[in-house]
Amino acid sequence: MAHAHASAALPRIVIVGAGFGGLAAARALRRARAEVTVIDRRNFHLFQPLLYQVATAALSPADISAPIRSVLRGQANARVMLDKVTGIDREQRLVLTEGGRRVPYDHLVLATGARHSYFGRDEEWAALAPGIKTLDDATRLRARILLAFEKAELESDPAKRRALLTFLVIGAGPTGVELAGAIAELARKAVPRDFRTITPESASIVLIEAGQRILPSFREDLAQAAAASLQAMGVTLELGKAVGEVTAEGVSVGGRHMSAGTIVWAAGVKASAAGRWLAAETDRAGRVRVGRDFSVPGAPEIFVIGDAAAHADGQGRLLPGVAPAAKQAGSHVGALIAARLAGSVTPAPFQYRSRGAMATIGRKSAVVDLGRLRLTGLLGWLLWSLAHVWFLVGFRNRVSVATSWLWSYLTWERGARLITGQEIARAEPPPMPAQRREAA
Amino acid sequence: MAHAHASAALPRIVIVGAGFGGLAAARALRRARAEVTVIDRRNFHLFQPLLYQVATAALSPADISAPIRSVLRGQANARVMLDKVTGIDREQRLVLTEGGRRVPYDHLVLATGARHSYFGRDEEWAALAPGIKTLDDATRLRARILLAFEKAELESDPAKRRALLTFLVIGAGPTGVELAGAIAELARKAVPRDFRTITPESASIVLIEAGQRILPSFREDLAQAAAASLQAMGVTLELGKAVGEVTAEGVSVGGRHMSAGTIVWAAGVKASAAGRWLAAETDRAGRVRVGRDFSVPGAPEIFVIGDAAAHADGQGRLLPGVAPAAKQAGSHVGALIAARLAGSVTPAPFQYRSRGAMATIGRKSAVVDLGRLRLTGLLGWLLWSLAHVWFLVGFRNRVSVATSWLWSYLTWERGARLITGQEIARAEPPPMPAQRREAA
Repeated sequence: MAHAHASAALPRIVIVGAGFGGLAAARALRRARAEVTVIDRRNFHLFQPLLYQVATAALSPADISAPIRSVLRGQANARVMLDKVTGIDREQRLVLTEGGRRVPYDHLVLATGARHSYFGRDEEWAALAPGIKTLDDATRLRARILLAFEKAELESDPAKRRALLTFLVIGAGPTGVELAGAIAELARKAVPRDFRTITPESASIVLIEAGQRILPSFREDLAQAAAASLQAMGVTLELGKAVGEVTAEGVSVGGRHMSAGTIVWAAGVKASAAGRWLAAETDRAGRVRVGRDFSVPGAPEIFVIGDAAAHADGQGRLLPGVAPAAKQAGSHVGALIAARLAGSVTPAPFQYRSRGAMATIGRKSAVVDLGRLRLTGLLGWLLWSLAHVWFLVGFRNRVSVATSWLWSYLTWERGARLITGQEIARAEPPPMPAQRREAA
Repeated sequence: MAHAHASAALPRIVIVGAGFGGLAAARALRRARAEVTVIDRRNFHLFQPLLYQVATAALSPADISAPIRSVLRGQANARVMLDKVTGIDREQRLVLTEGGRRVPYDHLVLATGARHSYFGRDEEWAALAPGIKTLDDATRLRARILLAFEKAELESDPAKRRALLTFLVIGAGPTGVELAGAIAELARKAVPRDFRTITPESASIVLIEAGQRILPSFREDLAQAAAASLQAMGVTLELGKAVGEVTAEGVSVGGRHMSAGTIVWAAGVKASAAGRWLAAETDRAGRVRVGRDFSVPGAPEIFVIGDAAAHADGQGRLLPGVAPAAKQAGSHVGALIAARLAGSVTPAPFQYRSRGAMATIGRKSAVVDLGRLRLTGLLGWLLWSLAHVWFLVGFRNRVSVATSWLWSYLTWERGARLITGQEIARAEPPPMPAQRREAA
């Protein structure tokens, strides 16, 4: 408590975003004589790699989230601010927020992540083909998928019924592959048991990819194993086909119209607003071009890490947009700032150590590439599960996720199958709940 | 699958509402040669008695809910319809829905529950002092309570801070008592560990009751024990004081203004629209006056049970609005219909068997009245916990709730402390998410 008031003289480090990168930076500063402020517009850290499991009703939101305050509880020099950053005053060194705050900094770390990108069609397509980046995205998609089954159960028109039971996933990177596999499991294993007219064969899951193969960031043989697993689960692959148009009824792919009740976007991301706030140079995806130490050119006190940054190594290779890369960048930047403050020796230049790549296709099947070790099928799945449970923030979550998965694995039961947050069967948008207006 | 198509000749029983009463009625009909249709606007059954634990971040929504389809999975003669009932055509014997369906019935069971009642001030007060009847109510209240702490942490004006940390609960029946106790625990045990400026003493929890004592449905000595427990936990009791006005800043009680950031309503309920649909006689709380067998006077094929009904026994005593009463009524009505269909002997007249009453005040303290056996304190709490875990629908939920509670009990940790579904720090209502519009 004392530090919050008596520390005006301490250097102020502001970290925006409590994802993997931001939290790693905060932790690397835990022994620094400084006042560390973590600002996020949500009160929880999210284990984004498992969002698709919330969207497909396998896990509950609380299973993959941890309150930021709990994560940083033991770190006496850190405080948490729940607010939405709206801009940065580089001249005055202030972070500006929607709540009207002006938070001064001596060092600034921006770890604000990425949003979906619809190749310039954001306004039209975002509502028709939602993606999953936030917990609210995931619970909305969950409601949409579950409602599609509910409506199909009661639909007598065969064409409408077929459309309701068609699920299109656009983009076959890890998220698209994992989503398509999880929807196929839901549709073929969990759902038919509870519905009277839906059989395992009645649902159609299609994975659409503009490139010639799925999982472009994986080795070809692993990608092929993954494709075979997906097909065995009943997922149709449409490769080498770019989406031309998205409408409320479906998509057009290579001139052909495909009707679908549910369309999910996993095809592209763009960086959040950090580049705009800084008026800094960005790449085509909106990522801030940073130096080898993640600092913004001309501003050694400002760092951008994670999905918001375009960081190239000596050979010009871009740091991938994955959690381990964000974590390593956060730790590096935190250590760098700590060394600067202490006047001690600067850490060695940043060097990304790839932990390998993993993607799960469904129960009992995943592909894992750890460099020397490559696994597919059940062994891959077991390693994938262990790794994800292990890395989940917070012990309580580990226990809960492990029991959810085990239970789900043994019974094909879905514990989180709730349609919340919306009225059903409406033709018009529901009215704003009065409480929501009030709550802010 | 066959029954859905080939059963046109079977008698059609429609049950509206999948709460305790509706599900009990459906189960009692499981061996009937009939087509049972359960209509609900939600896809899950909700264990309402534990909603306050979701609102206070001790449990997750999935812990206290079970998909209706899973509950009825084993019942071959039952089907589930996700839709919102808008009216009943008694002449044609049709249930009308928002989705435009006209569902024919031979027997109809209405188990539509209750909503909050603000003594004629619904429009003004509902948004200012929300209650908890639905899962969305509970997650909204959770967000409001957690946001109050977040805002207080960053507030420097002492008066505003005090208001933010003041929580008023209006109504000291079981729900009000349990909510006040759970908020007190959250404010005094779980929250101070995570915040820098909030101490256990800085929050103020006030329970306001128009009557002269809390828990009017309990024996006086048990209510006194509960009051002492609440006070020991730091809850201020304001008894014999009616709320005169509710504003965005607080309430006026007996001419005195009390500032509060969070006001929760637990003071009154009124029945849902069943009475209006039927154009039947209702009591002051909107409950349909039903006969001894729960049928609507003049319509032996229509039954109303649970909180939607006013059912008096031979001595004119009203059946209480609690889960066991709704369950017993549902079982009775289901058995009655089954006997009518089978032409077998009518079951004995309905006789309510009270299972006793329980209310928890917090960890390690509850009051339990089982008639001969009366418990308070820790023993009461242990029995209360066992009973609630036991009655939760679905084994998976039992395991999850048990581990959540055990973990929470051992560590004072809150696993479900997420603020979801809303942006923070806004002065105006947030825009409708585009997806929400789309989803319906």
